[in-house]
Amino acid sequence: MSGLCLEDLGLGQSAERTWTVDAAAIDAFAAVSGDDNPLHTDEAYAATGPFHGRVAHGMLAASYISAVLGAQLPGAGAIYLAQTLRFLRPVRIGDEVKVTVTVTGIDPAKARVTLSTRCAVGRKSVVDGEAQVLVSRRGA
Amino acid sequence: MSGLCLEDLGLGQSAERTWTVDAAAIDAFAAVSGDDNPLHTDEAYAATGPFHGRVAHGMLAASYISAVLGAQLPGAGAIYLAQTLRFLRPVRIGDEVKVTVTVTGIDPAKARVTLSTRCAVGRKSVVDGEAQVLVSRRGA
Repeated sequence: MSGLCLEDLGLGQSAERTWTVDAAAIDAFAAVSGDDNPLHTDEAYAATGPFHGRVAHGMLAASYISAVLGAQLPGAGAIYLAQTLRFLRPVRIGDEVKVTVTVTGIDPAKARVTLSTRCAVGRKSVVDGEAQVLVSRRGA
Repeated sequence: MSGLCLEDLGLGQSAERTWTVDAAAIDAFAAVSGDDNPLHTDEAYAATGPFHGRVAHGMLAASYISAVLGAQLPGAGAIYLAQTLRFLRPVRIGDEVKVTVTVTGIDPAKARVTLSTRCAVGRKSVVDGEAQVLVSRRGA
C-alpha cells in the first residue's frame, strides 16, 4: 500500500483518471459537504440560473484531483500540503471529467513535489491549478 | 433561495459553521471522491504513518469552505471562481472543524469578491486560504 517515493519521481511524470459525473455523485457530494447550493441540487432553480441546469460543485472536481494524488501519483503515503484551484467552466451531469496531474517541480532537500493539476471535459479545462505534496524517501 | 448580492456585502463581513468529523464522513468522502488513500481509510495502516491514526482528507475540509460560501456568504447564486488551500494540520476523527469565511476584498466593477477562508480545530488553523467568487447585482 505504499506509493511512489522521492527517488521514483521525475519531472514530466504524469497520471490520469476519468470520472463520469452523474446526479448521484452531485447529490452525494452535497450530502457529505453540506453544500446544498441549489445551483447544484435543484434542477428547477438551476434551470433559471447562469448555467441553465444543474452543475457539479467545483470542489467535487477538486476532490478527484486529491484522489489521483493520493492513489496514483505520488500515491499512498504522500502528504497534501497545498492546492490552488481555478474553476473555469461548469461540469454538467453526464460530463466525463479527466484529471491529469504532472510533476512540474521537485525539491529534493525538502522532499516536496509540485504538480500541475488539470480537470478537463473533452478538450477544455474545467478546473486547473497546482498541488504541493510531501513525499517519503526510499527506506526512510 | 437567493443569497447575498454585491450591494449586501462589505469588508469584514463574516460567516461560520462547525462540522464534527466522524469516521462515516471520511468514509463517505472517500467513496464520492474515489480518494481511498489508506492514511484516511485504514486505521491499521494509518496508525503506522506520520499522524499515528486515520486523518480526514484535506479536501473534505475544503468542501466545508465551499458549503459556507454556497449556503451562507455570499450564499446561493454565488459562482466559485478560485480557491487556494494550505493544508496545515491533520483533522482527526472526532475533531470539530469550524470554518470561517470573511470578506477581504470587493471589486464592484467585476462583481468579484475575495474572502479569507479558515478551517480551525480549537484555536489552531488546519486549512487556510482564499476564495474568489462572482456575485449577482441586486435586481440583475
